[in-house]
Amino acid sequence: MRNFRLTLAYDGSRYKGWQKQGNTPNTIQGKLETLLSRVLEQNVEVNGSGRTDAGAHARMQVASFRADTDISCGELLRQMRTYLPEDIGALELTEAAPRFHARLNCVEKTYVYRIWNSEAPNVFERKYLWTMPRELDMAKMSLAAGKICGKHDFRAFCSLKKFNKSTVRHAKEIKIERIGNELRFSVTGDGFLYNMVRIIVGTLVEVGLGERDMSTIDAAFETLDRQQTGQTAPACGLTLWEVKY
Amino acid sequence: MRNFRLTLAYDGSRYKGWQKQGNTPNTIQGKLETLLSRVLEQNVEVNGSGRTDAGAHARMQVASFRADTDISCGELLRQMRTYLPEDIGALELTEAAPRFHARLNCVEKTYVYRIWNSEAPNVFERKYLWTMPRELDMAKMSLAAGKICGKHDFRAFCSLKKFNKSTVRHAKEIKIERIGNELRFSVTGDGFLYNMVRIIVGTLVEVGLGERDMSTIDAAFETLDRQQTGQTAPACGLTLWEVKY
Repeated sequence: MRNFRLTLAYDGSRYKGWQKQGNTPNTIQGKLETLLSRVLEQNVEVNGSGRTDAGAHARMQVASFRADTDISCGELLRQMRTYLPEDIGALELTEAAPRFHARLNCVEKTYVYRIWNSEAPNVFERKYLWTMPRELDMAKMSLAAGKICGKHDFRAFCSLKKFNKSTVRHAKEIKIERIGNELRFSVTGDGFLYNMVRIIVGTLVEVGLGERDMSTIDAAFETLDRQQTGQTAPACGLTLWEVKY
Repeated sequence: MRNFRLTLAYDGSRYKGWQKQGNTPNTIQGKLETLLSRVLEQNVEVNGSGRTDAGAHARMQVASFRADTDISCGELLRQMRTYLPEDIGALELTEAAPRFHARLNCVEKTYVYRIWNSEAPNVFERKYLWTMPRELDMAKMSLAAGKICGKHDFRAFCSLKKFNKSTVRHAKEIKIERIGNELRFSVTGDGFLYNMVRIIVGTLVEVGLGERDMSTIDAAFETLDRQQTGQTAPACGLTLWEVKY
């Protein structure tokens, strides 16, 4: 069995997220497994560095899969590019060490959340942005981001209601930049809970709008209560930006 | 009658170009006229700085229209933003001098043609690029661009077969830049014939691929023969970039 490492980008607008779900055909993992299983004439299971939400995008997603085949990486990459839909891009394919696993070996991920902070619409990137024209207080949001950074139990920043595993994560950095009319939130961490980045951004936006007191963030970490955090920002603004091993 | 100046951006992917055509509903001009006529409760005719082709885009298009109304520019702009489809963006609306006409007063336009010059797909901007992964000789294309620049009869660079008016145009500048995997052709001129920028780019690409001899460009200007120029590059790569008055 050979082991492969695949780097992908996708526009997630039309997909129900990364993870295959029973008979739901429209997932990134599902598309890749169907294609690879057909091309390689065997059952192929694809492991991503992590799941991305329905409607969220990836500028860089890494996946691994094993297969018993003689095909060259160049030829398999060419076939993937020929048969994948135009919103899923195969960027790179290399042979990986036998024990490489895209999820288990991942040490750091960066998500970028993009807000279009203007009344004037952005027609070209509209599918990759959350349009939110109201004025946002950058200083307040940066202070609040500083409170969220660090190693905490992030249970209040997760949409799930049952937890079997640890919900402690290390948010290493939350950077907020203004690039013209765009506000860009870059969140780097060792791992993320379900909807965690979108709830962080939703919380920061409520702080920036003056609708949420900064003290609720301390309360969120104390009580671990989802009621203490903000709305889940829309998936379309979220992009998995970089994955490190 | 008041006179208005409207600045627009549009993703032209789903449209049959700027110009309304009888009963074809899907044109930018048609969408604007229908909307403004309804909002202002009168027949409104919208004049653009120029027509853009079916499938081509505009980062900055300027249009003018007259109407008998008391509405403020701010309120009319707000209504346009509410009712226009998400791929047509109203960027700015101001009151114009009584004799201002978006087409007649335009003195210079810049079109940008974007080529994605890589085997690795660009999923996010795929609708605004012509994907052409083969190697292109920048030096040759720049030399050929130099030959095309200037004031000439551009009849050989036009898809129409009948000409009632002058086909002399002044191509003031053709800039070719490489930005990562993107090749960007910026063509600035006092006016453009039908498909002119796309035929210029198609011709330059054939030169860059080594499939066309530079001397055919001189021949094109001498013979005025469409056979002497290259293919019409696909519309999706073309964006009206800037309009000057």
